[in-house]
Amino acid sequence: MIRHVAIVGATGAVGREVCTIFEERGLRFERISLLASSRGAGTRISVNGHAYTVQELSERSFEGVDYAIFSAGSERSKQFAPIANKAGSVVIDNSSAFRMDPDTPLVIPEINPEDVKQHRGIIANPNCSTIIMAMAVWPLHRANPVRRIVVSTYQSASGAGAAAMEELRTQTADHLAGRKVIPQVFPHPIAFNLFSHNTPIGPDGYNTEEKKMLEETRKIFHAPSIAIAPTCIRVPVLRAHSESINLTFEQPITPREVRLILSEAPGVTVVDDVKANRFPMPVDASGKDNVFVGRIRQDISQPDGRGIELFASGDQLRKGAALNAIQILELLQELAL
Amino acid sequence: MIRHVAIVGATGAVGREVCTIFEERGLRFERISLLASSRGAGTRISVNGHAYTVQELSERSFEGVDYAIFSAGSERSKQFAPIANKAGSVVIDNSSAFRMDPDTPLVIPEINPEDVKQHRGIIANPNCSTIIMAMAVWPLHRANPVRRIVVSTYQSASGAGAAAMEELRTQTADHLAGRKVIPQVFPHPIAFNLFSHNTPIGPDGYNTEEKKMLEETRKIFHAPSIAIAPTCIRVPVLRAHSESINLTFEQPITPREVRLILSEAPGVTVVDDVKANRFPMPVDASGKDNVFVGRIRQDISQPDGRGIELFASGDQLRKGAALNAIQILELLQELAL
Repeated sequence: MIRHVAIVGATGAVGREVCTIFEERGLRFERISLLASSRGAGTRISVNGHAYTVQELSERSFEGVDYAIFSAGSERSKQFAPIANKAGSVVIDNSSAFRMDPDTPLVIPEINPEDVKQHRGIIANPNCSTIIMAMAVWPLHRANPVRRIVVSTYQSASGAGAAAMEELRTQTADHLAGRKVIPQVFPHPIAFNLFSHNTPIGPDGYNTEEKKMLEETRKIFHAPSIAIAPTCIRVPVLRAHSESINLTFEQPITPREVRLILSEAPGVTVVDDVKANRFPMPVDASGKDNVFVGRIRQDISQPDGRGIELFASGDQLRKGAALNAIQILELLQELAL
Repeated sequence: MIRHVAIVGATGAVGREVCTIFEERGLRFERISLLASSRGAGTRISVNGHAYTVQELSERSFEGVDYAIFSAGSERSKQFAPIANKAGSVVIDNSSAFRMDPDTPLVIPEINPEDVKQHRGIIANPNCSTIIMAMAVWPLHRANPVRRIVVSTYQSASGAGAAAMEELRTQTADHLAGRKVIPQVFPHPIAFNLFSHNTPIGPDGYNTEEKKMLEETRKIFHAPSIAIAPTCIRVPVLRAHSESINLTFEQPITPREVRLILSEAPGVTVVDDVKANRFPMPVDASGKDNVFVGRIRQDISQPDGRGIELFASGDQLRKGAALNAIQILELLQELAL
């Protein structure tokens, strides 16, 4: 049993999912602190059948806290994670603040659980698009190293938080009613539209989301030279991300081998029903723990048999964020770290 | 001036767009026959400021018709195109019925206008996803041959017709109102969801839409060995298709060269505003003639400088269907064919 756990950003989309998963997995604790900004403080949230009042996050929030799960954005993590560490808490951080810090392990428990042992107070949770791709690719990479990935994402509104999901709903209703659509959370209309991920673009032309997919995958896989060409696109879907993944392996590989490997991979569900034309879809992946993978086929553009194409959908709030963080917490407990 | 033109499938999404574009481009004709199935017959549609009554399509519909634009599905094209030819009409066919027939030219006027001269009564209009990709890739391929394309599509509901667009609207309204969603036109929910293109899947794992992108592009480009790995996905967007395109060229090429070539290419608009994070979007491309291309960057996964990444959006009903057909008609008139 956990003595004292804190959820920072408890009223956000990921924070609320953390609370739900605590309950689902029957995670027991003696004490829980639900923390948020002054705006969220006072909200009542139920965990394990008991309603807790969200407290305002402050420098004194971490006294006696063993584990703190942060899902409140990079700025808050940068400010409060060191404070939590000083108070003796181990931080599991959902933000991008520490992911590429060489002293911070970046962990997907199905892939690199042993990295958690190197932590110095903070374990980083990878970006959601990275996790969903990594879950589909890692089991194959272990069997036959992946040389190159060309990936295009279909990212849901949930990746931008609860307000973005609400904007997708209200903007769509406005569009259907013929009312003028005024984007507020997103910079572009999201109703019946899609757009390039609105993170800053570097001198190489790639946006931050795309760079995360490249750099984080290299770190998690311990594969510093794996080549990745990502294109990140936001689509009008509520909460599961999808990804079209084209792979080049070191050695030839068949769809049959891929299907076999993935069907035995933890955290992966193969959805590849050619006859029924049923493959991974956001509506099916939403609320599910596993990443769905299908459309498994030999890449006809790589005649040497080293190419495979896949399509994956995974719940961005669960495996893409809250669930992975809780799996890290479970791993820490198991290792008594 | 055209003497007598017929629009087969005049009440469908593409047929209606054909009528609109006739008016916009000021195409003049002495006589027009709007044709549809018995269900559509009797509908009044305005062309060039005059309302016409849609007639029921029959074997006698083509007497005296010089040009007939078919947008009524493959079965109807297979049945009625030979009848139209026999009556002396030249057919421009939007369906897939004759596209891969070696005797039928498959034409995008900006790319292979000269192919139209080989026609034997039918000129095929390519698939919408093919046209949008080809418009973005052809100007580059001419300058530096493209060896391989990895493409993932974000296809709008309009590609499945007017009823599919209506289903997206009503199903989304039902979803927002908490009503049960029952798919009718599409096999899967389309509201806030996406799915693999629901065309039959061949033994190689590719669906028909994907095979069209491969085979049609090879035919239009006269490039039988160009390698293409397509993944076709339907998204909850109303009427413009988008495509994430990864290219491998024969020789190294820079984003600057690509931008220059595309900015001068007919039918292409470069939308590549890195500072404002504004790139091709369906809402902007809808109703426009040009294919929008942006996110032009050197592919970081191809260190030899032969890789380029692009993102394109094009109106599926216009350049993807009706406009291209009308451009073929204009070409036929110009060449007096």
